[in-house]
Amino acid sequence: MTNHEQSDRGTQSQMLEIAIEEARQGLSEGGIPIGAAIFDRHGNLLGRGHNRRIQENDPSIHGETDAFRRAGRQRTYRDKIMVTTLAPCWYCSGLVRQFGIPTVIVGESTNFRGGIDWLRENGVEVIDLNSAECIKLLADYIRANPAVWNEDIGVE
Amino acid sequence: MTNHEQSDRGTQSQMLEIAIEEARQGLSEGGIPIGAAIFDRHGNLLGRGHNRRIQENDPSIHGETDAFRRAGRQRTYRDKIMVTTLAPCWYCSGLVRQFGIPTVIVGESTNFRGGIDWLRENGVEVIDLNSAECIKLLADYIRANPAVWNEDIGVE
Repeated sequence: MTNHEQSDRGTQSQMLEIAIEEARQGLSEGGIPIGAAIFDRHGNLLGRGHNRRIQENDPSIHGETDAFRRAGRQRTYRDKIMVTTLAPCWYCSGLVRQFGIPTVIVGESTNFRGGIDWLRENGVEVIDLNSAECIKLLADYIRANPAVWNEDIGVE
Repeated sequence: MTNHEQSDRGTQSQMLEIAIEEARQGLSEGGIPIGAAIFDRHGNLLGRGHNRRIQENDPSIHGETDAFRRAGRQRTYRDKIMVTTLAPCWYCSGLVRQFGIPTVIVGESTNFRGGIDWLRENGVEVIDLNSAECIKLLADYIRANPAVWNEDIGVE
């Protein structure tokens, strides 16, 4: 993938589609519908995952962390792209910063803005696709499950 | 535990001892010797863990994340204390901020400073015990395994 292709909205949407599939898989399991995937700069999928708070009783597995862990150990993250249906929280924003992932594609930042301004201030390219599908998928879940959502982002 | 007792160095050192046990356990498994534990404000241990990058081929399991996940889902983190042998990286600092953990006790910040200044700026109480034992345990490991250490903090 060239730089030109990386910035192509169609390619970005195809990558987001994987994250959306993960979010829908999570929902079908009874979980919070947030999904993510990590690609290299050539567009090869390295890891994909979704929020598993409910399924595994594990508060650490946000979608981004699940995709990150499933990608296994990588020599570098400087050539990786994190794609997620929702703007990453502080935890997952910290993941992006610590490991030097240069590009994050988010499906939306309407339901939750997370740390994307902080990431941008620290040199991370954040591309917000403002996906109506992503917005609705999570908004419907939050409306039906406000307590679980608040728990997932540490709000009381 | 009263506020007075919480600020007692002896109690803090006892909590750190659990994290050090975890770090030593990780080292005995061939892993990076960083450990952590989560307590409630009464001093009850809720979860303990250690870095498992090597052992589980999983880059997401820093000590803090391991302790966090093993504590399971909690109704609130406002009354919790995170104890870790090493200052938390951006990823684990983000965890602390996202879930509103008010107090972090670190064994040391000499080998790695992580996000502790940022946590303090954001209202988190960070207590640095400047433990010679923690400093030596990790420094020895880093000296013998510089590539693994750099991988663990995303440095190339």
